[in-house]
Amino acid sequence: MLSAEAATEPDPEGPGRPLGEAGSRFLAEISEQPAALLRLLERRAVFEQVAAEILERQATTIRMVGHGSSDNAASYGVYAFGLLPAWTALRDSISLTVYYGAELDMSGSTVLALSQSGRTPDVVEYLERTRRNGAFTVAITNDPSSALANAADAVLPLEAGPEQAVAATKTYMNQLAALGLLAAHAAGIGPRFADDLRAGAAAIEQLVPAVREVITNVAVSFAYAGRMFVVGRGAEFATAREIALKLLETCRVAAEPLTATDLAHGPVAALDALFPVWAIASDDETLPAVLEAVARARDAGATIIASGSAAGAVLGADYSLPVPDPPTPLLSPLLSVVPGQLFAWALARTKGLDPDEPRGLSKVTLAR
Amino acid sequence: MLSAEAATEPDPEGPGRPLGEAGSRFLAEISEQPAALLRLLERRAVFEQVAAEILERQATTIRMVGHGSSDNAASYGVYAFGLLPAWTALRDSISLTVYYGAELDMSGSTVLALSQSGRTPDVVEYLERTRRNGAFTVAITNDPSSALANAADAVLPLEAGPEQAVAATKTYMNQLAALGLLAAHAAGIGPRFADDLRAGAAAIEQLVPAVREVITNVAVSFAYAGRMFVVGRGAEFATAREIALKLLETCRVAAEPLTATDLAHGPVAALDALFPVWAIASDDETLPAVLEAVARARDAGATIIASGSAAGAVLGADYSLPVPDPPTPLLSPLLSVVPGQLFAWALARTKGLDPDEPRGLSKVTLAR
Repeated sequence: MLSAEAATEPDPEGPGRPLGEAGSRFLAEISEQPAALLRLLERRAVFEQVAAEILERQATTIRMVGHGSSDNAASYGVYAFGLLPAWTALRDSISLTVYYGAELDMSGSTVLALSQSGRTPDVVEYLERTRRNGAFTVAITNDPSSALANAADAVLPLEAGPEQAVAATKTYMNQLAALGLLAAHAAGIGPRFADDLRAGAAAIEQLVPAVREVITNVAVSFAYAGRMFVVGRGAEFATAREIALKLLETCRVAAEPLTATDLAHGPVAALDALFPVWAIASDDETLPAVLEAVARARDAGATIIASGSAAGAVLGADYSLPVPDPPTPLLSPLLSVVPGQLFAWALARTKGLDPDEPRGLSKVTLAR
Repeated sequence: MLSAEAATEPDPEGPGRPLGEAGSRFLAEISEQPAALLRLLERRAVFEQVAAEILERQATTIRMVGHGSSDNAASYGVYAFGLLPAWTALRDSISLTVYYGAELDMSGSTVLALSQSGRTPDVVEYLERTRRNGAFTVAITNDPSSALANAADAVLPLEAGPEQAVAATKTYMNQLAALGLLAAHAAGIGPRFADDLRAGAAAIEQLVPAVREVITNVAVSFAYAGRMFVVGRGAEFATAREIALKLLETCRVAAEPLTATDLAHGPVAALDALFPVWAIASDDETLPAVLEAVARARDAGATIIASGSAAGAVLGADYSLPVPDPPTPLLSPLLSVVPGQLFAWALARTKGLDPDEPRGLSKVTLAR
């Protein structure tokens, strides 16, 4: 899936790889996120149509499936559908249907299958089986001609555009936007949410260069960190998962996402001064739980990085990476993920790794 | 919640702590699991009754909530209810209801609230709110006089007995059994499942001393491991989560649970020879996916520990901790977790830590 269009001469590191500074594609794609969001908004009519079809079929149990970043985006979908149309949305078990052949009643269910490439084998098979069992099936993918799209009742185009860095950034961003936009149309507030998304894109446009300016100085302090917890709660748990995955993929840090409350239920025992904690503190109803978790981590001697719109409320943080208030609370995770993406970019470079092409990964994962 | 009954003289390490070898309570409770399972089975009539009430109310969407080990047990519940009565069971978002105040339609839902102590604040509040919104609410707890039990429509007693080590073992074991038994009664096969559970208890009775005999020799090789992935798929994902949590709590290892497929979607990039992978290989439909994941991890240079009933099928594993075939496939996770519990006990002692009382944890967690 790597395109050679930008390459002017062969690259000794591998075929089809454009020459350039390590991480230049990853950084370019982080920067391109506002434009990707605007492209998605041009397809708003399709989202309106699919939302209408869900309502008409009364298929209001939302089953989301995907791996990696796509599954992280699904964590956000739980809140988008729970808070806007007040529907139950779940990250469904793929193996229950695909491996064990369980035959759950799928009438009343909409399947949202998330795959950048549209080629993830068990996601395609899950969609095919649940469709046979009566689910309304929707592919959310960058490739509307993919196997996943062909197998589905409807396709929501991600419009992230070609993503060349192996670690997803703009695809994840547009997955959040797609889930939010669909939920908003289901709740009858699609146009207002689209306006908010547009304002969010403008805020990210400002945020990327501002964070980039400071992030390398933060990252150098973590060059020797081999492990990290990333803590978020509620809608920001998706952000915690996605930042942890970027650190694993591009920086070889054993970063584990935890909800603020789960940190206290065991993992806090592992912390010490060499085990930093990244806390996503957003100005919403979950903030007290996050602040309480950070206090426990600080008591255990952990170095604290605070990000999010309420980063300033995290007392005693060693590093603070604030983001602006979102146009509407549900868009907070679109802003909150940006410092994590840029931190991963900077830390990988600090460690002499190439975040464009982490060892052992390929853009399209065909693993079972 | 620590009992002083066994103490004969004051302990300089803390009030109420019986003197004894580090980890002696943790080990005693691991060994006591077969007896705990048999105690649960004596209460089978209550499980039959609650299953009948779920059926009568047609409240067949199962919403499970809990933190830590309780949430890990809920991962197992997804498969128990999916495979036996073919119901949708989900680990529900606590924060959606408790923090954000979302008002989801709860008619047709049964809430299973899992808490050892019955005192976890947000689990109690989730149950109270969902009950007001029309859910049938069931407390699954060791303390039938707890706040959680008092707030619920029905109580399923865990019967694990007093658990003094901070890290749960027999409570987790009985949570799996409780979820399985309820699902089996819902599917009309309660008595047969109870017989299988009895056979499982007998198998665990043999397994504990057999693993204990070899485990310290395995654990010493990991004294300097600071991080680990624990890989499982399907019903064994619960086991992966629980083993990882034991390692975090008692051994201060940054252990992260991953499904076999998710390993390939990014985290594999972090692996090297100092980053071991524990793979749970059980003889079920997910085995090919687990074997494929192990092959990728081995290619990345990781040290491999294989456990489970199909541990012998993991080619090139550095350490193998096989368990017997379960009486029925759904009981596999009850056996699979045992080598992980004993490994955590042995590794903690190897590292000079006391697995009975990890630093920074208490038995009852009142964190938000």
